[in-house]
Amino acid sequence: MRDAVNALAEALNTEDPLKLWSFLVSCLGDVSQDGAVEVSGITLSALVERVGLQPQAMRVALHRLKRDGWVESRRVGRVGYHRLSDNALRRTRAVAARIYGPAAAETEWHLVGLPPDAPDGLALLPDRVSAIAISRSFALVSGPVDDVPEDWLVTAPGARDLPAWVQDIVAKAACESGFAGLEAAVAAIDALPEALPDEQLDRFALRVLVLHGWRRLVLRSNPAAETAIGVGRAEMTCRARVHGLLERLGPVTPEWFQVAS
Amino acid sequence: MRDAVNALAEALNTEDPLKLWSFLVSCLGDVSQDGAVEVSGITLSALVERVGLQPQAMRVALHRLKRDGWVESRRVGRVGYHRLSDNALRRTRAVAARIYGPAAAETEWHLVGLPPDAPDGLALLPDRVSAIAISRSFALVSGPVDDVPEDWLVTAPGARDLPAWVQDIVAKAACESGFAGLEAAVAAIDALPEALPDEQLDRFALRVLVLHGWRRLVLRSNPAAETAIGVGRAEMTCRARVHGLLERLGPVTPEWFQVAS
Repeated sequence: MRDAVNALAEALNTEDPLKLWSFLVSCLGDVSQDGAVEVSGITLSALVERVGLQPQAMRVALHRLKRDGWVESRRVGRVGYHRLSDNALRRTRAVAARIYGPAAAETEWHLVGLPPDAPDGLALLPDRVSAIAISRSFALVSGPVDDVPEDWLVTAPGARDLPAWVQDIVAKAACESGFAGLEAAVAAIDALPEALPDEQLDRFALRVLVLHGWRRLVLRSNPAAETAIGVGRAEMTCRARVHGLLERLGPVTPEWFQVAS
Repeated sequence: MRDAVNALAEALNTEDPLKLWSFLVSCLGDVSQDGAVEVSGITLSALVERVGLQPQAMRVALHRLKRDGWVESRRVGRVGYHRLSDNALRRTRAVAARIYGPAAAETEWHLVGLPPDAPDGLALLPDRVSAIAISRSFALVSGPVDDVPEDWLVTAPGARDLPAWVQDIVAKAACESGFAGLEAAVAAIDALPEALPDEQLDRFALRVLVLHGWRRLVLRSNPAAETAIGVGRAEMTCRARVHGLLERLGPVTPEWFQVAS
């Protein structure tokens, strides 16, 4: 019989196969919201196995994460303990509001036109400005428009709705179908009788799974594209559904990730 | 000593050499504002000679204008009479407001983005909508925005001024330097003591000259580009100066163009 953890893992795998290294980053990032927290290899193994990934692949995944500066490990006797590096924590915190916070306040998008001699010009924008190209030299942007370079053309939304070809571009960049899929998957979980498992490992697995599915979508989705779609965008309802499940599961407690050690 | 006619002809020639066929169209169009009026070859010769063009070239120019359907001629004895064809009159009337009327009322420009599969799409716009391309698939437009095809992106001016590279494009398309040059030339004529010659042929020549210089600029200048520049554009002050001189010279009377017959 399918339980909530299996059902969600299956749904996420259908959308986009779960990657072990990325799942581990989601897990270590989630437990470290208030400061670096280490998790034992035993707990990570149990968690990984519970969501249907291969614990045998963990040694390689952790080795790569350490090599790339994402994870730091220490060993106490026969048990390894793993945490995000300071650099990874900084990068994780930079996007925490987007993952754990409310949906971005509604702002207006602008259309910007790059000067003819500015190829790859979108890379010139500061981080606070998001952009989605809709032609070779025009893009929709959101964020502080004053940060757009002075020699760019800036126009505002007209009275007319975005035409279909722009809607297609922004819907894709805003991961509309991804968010809709995740929302449906979480809604299906919510409807299961055992949506809130009693087992601590199951709760932990469910929390990290839904957070991982959400995180990978949110970090891929383009905020300018979301702004252009506006209040009806799939990210908003999906965020409410994901945050709702996280709330029902309750906050991460040390017992959760010490369960198997 | 330079007189007003010579001075203006010289100024126009500096900007862009006078073309005989085009000068004849300006003349025949001007006298035909209220309906087709024919002008004798003798008058046209005198006029052409007065502005420094070659009357010997008239036979060829008239022949070509007839061949292209612009001019119709009849012969009475040894004198030829020439007038615009009905088709040419229609085309002349279609632009009469832009030539003889006040400057266009201020409207807002819009930026439009063509769908990726619409190359040469600006040709799809109805005549009432003017457009000036600023990239491969984006253009500034003026005129009734509802006439822009439904699948085009339409945005409105933002809070920021147009950047220099767009200003350069619109200044060129709006013939800013041409209008400024004509205005200066007419201002110089206005300052001459003999700005209003007594001779009817001189008055006629001056009128057709300034009208010709104005007409060739106005028909080349892009209304969307003018709208994007706004109230400070050179076309507005030039129009006031040209219309002022036309008014001082007084309306065309039959005596003017029968003077030499």
